[in-house]
Amino acid sequence: MHAITITEPGGPEVLRWTEVPDLEPGPGEVLIDVAASAVNRADLLQRQGAYPPPPGASEYPGLECSGRIAAVGPGVEGWNVGDEVCALLAGGGYAEQVVVPAGQVLPVPDGVLLAEAAGLPEVYCTVWSNVFAVGRLAPGDTFLVHGGAGGIGTAAIQLASAYGARVFCTASAAKHNLCLALGAERAIDYRSEDFVEIVKDATDGRGVDVILDNMGAKYLGRNVTALATNGRLVVIGMQGGVKGELNLGALLAKRASITATSLRARPISEKTEIVEDVKTHVWPLISFGKIRPIIDRAVALPDAAEAHRVLEAGEASGKVLLVR
Amino acid sequence: MHAITITEPGGPEVLRWTEVPDLEPGPGEVLIDVAASAVNRADLLQRQGAYPPPPGASEYPGLECSGRIAAVGPGVEGWNVGDEVCALLAGGGYAEQVVVPAGQVLPVPDGVLLAEAAGLPEVYCTVWSNVFAVGRLAPGDTFLVHGGAGGIGTAAIQLASAYGARVFCTASAAKHNLCLALGAERAIDYRSEDFVEIVKDATDGRGVDVILDNMGAKYLGRNVTALATNGRLVVIGMQGGVKGELNLGALLAKRASITATSLRARPISEKTEIVEDVKTHVWPLISFGKIRPIIDRAVALPDAAEAHRVLEAGEASGKVLLVR
Repeated sequence: MHAITITEPGGPEVLRWTEVPDLEPGPGEVLIDVAASAVNRADLLQRQGAYPPPPGASEYPGLECSGRIAAVGPGVEGWNVGDEVCALLAGGGYAEQVVVPAGQVLPVPDGVLLAEAAGLPEVYCTVWSNVFAVGRLAPGDTFLVHGGAGGIGTAAIQLASAYGARVFCTASAAKHNLCLALGAERAIDYRSEDFVEIVKDATDGRGVDVILDNMGAKYLGRNVTALATNGRLVVIGMQGGVKGELNLGALLAKRASITATSLRARPISEKTEIVEDVKTHVWPLISFGKIRPIIDRAVALPDAAEAHRVLEAGEASGKVLLVR
Repeated sequence: MHAITITEPGGPEVLRWTEVPDLEPGPGEVLIDVAASAVNRADLLQRQGAYPPPPGASEYPGLECSGRIAAVGPGVEGWNVGDEVCALLAGGGYAEQVVVPAGQVLPVPDGVLLAEAAGLPEVYCTVWSNVFAVGRLAPGDTFLVHGGAGGIGTAAIQLASAYGARVFCTASAAKHNLCLALGAERAIDYRSEDFVEIVKDATDGRGVDVILDNMGAKYLGRNVTALATNGRLVVIGMQGGVKGELNLGALLAKRASITATSLRARPISEKTEIVEDVKTHVWPLISFGKIRPIIDRAVALPDAAEAHRVLEAGEASGKVLLVR
């Protein structure tokens, strides 16, 4: 089969469509004929050599895909050859075929095209596990997501809003209309506005209950300031640096918490549980049309380099798909 | 009545036994004839002017007491004049009488002297709410508490150990035997030993699941390094400073969390819930003798200045009581 390989750490040009060994599903795994994959920011880091695959994961990039089941390994129940599915991967999605533990496979939600479904697993597993499981967002809570127009952001706005939270986001001004259309009460231009001031004003000085952050150190102090009493800051990216000053006194005065997490390195058992929760709590909202896939564009899988360039340049609103 | 008042912010000498207005219980409150109170580190900060009482709380220091109920306010059920009790206070324990919401009152556990019970509410409400409710310590988990020989430390070691956790603590060498006798697997001399190295060695490199920290900034980096995957750092004091550098990359690699909390400023409803949990989960362990009050000494209430001096000098192992 063919897959995108990373010839050496570097820019988008190091991604090469290459002939690689065929795969076979092991016990508890399924083999998927990939219809589409999607680009995540972690893929850019992996390409640069800064985010090596966890032990046992495929060397090829790609944290999610959709397609048809081509074979099922021993002990797999509930999935059959030919089923249309999407899946959360530890890697290997940028390929003609991929092997994945059966617990990380999801049906394609009703009303969603097979290729579109490739952009759902990573964002909704990330948003569910961080905003709801870790952040315990509840109806009536206030919620701030940074990077509101990105893949995670567009999913977080829709899901939090569907669950009855008041949603704020940061995004560049050109993308504010999208964020508002998806359910944000207020989109904040991070270049010209102060998100702390705006969320404080909008909450009578209380601050927000949950923040989903992809900026890390750069926003650490302001995120803590923007939190309400008992607030929860969940950091899932560090586009603004890794090390920042934390004022524990400010955190203690709010009885607030900071959690930093990632999905990829979790054990299969935890991923299976998250996927199960997403199927229960998120998939029906997609089938009923309350949440929809937000696709920026689709690029042919062998041209993954171009897709990386688009994401890296901040040009995308929603997901960039890689289709066969 | 008389109470200890703080004449001005300063050293122990500013504590003065003074005649003050009598108190009456309001709706939902009880009036307690104080038999004993106990000194907490927060009292030292309040005396120095660095920790003002929350709105509505007594101006006098004292976050816990024991005694007999002298009067019950309108709407109070389950408590009667003459009952021997102890209570979690927002302030005012250093006095002949104190008023407290009925939900913050606990019975004196079987087998505990009335005066000894004064030292139980603050430490066990703090340990329960932080180590178990926030930190989710579970049987078989590993647990590190800093300041193991103090009031909080001696309570945390006993309770975590009674619940089947493996317990590590830091303490000065002279106090190690006490910590080990209370259930710690290993006491670490913070002056001459590296707690990160020791807990890593003892856990096959995994680190600890929960840390209860009173040092704040000074230990922030090392605490994060000492955490296991999915670890929880709970900061309840900042004796080592307020602002420290946080490595979010290290936190994310472990999918770990940092929470900073305090008990005193919480609303009465939350305190009532914690007190109820402590009565259910901790009081039986005290009555059965699995946990016992650790008393360093008892000082006459009018001599509160001397009690503050002892705690401030780090001379105490366990609680310093103030008795009438």
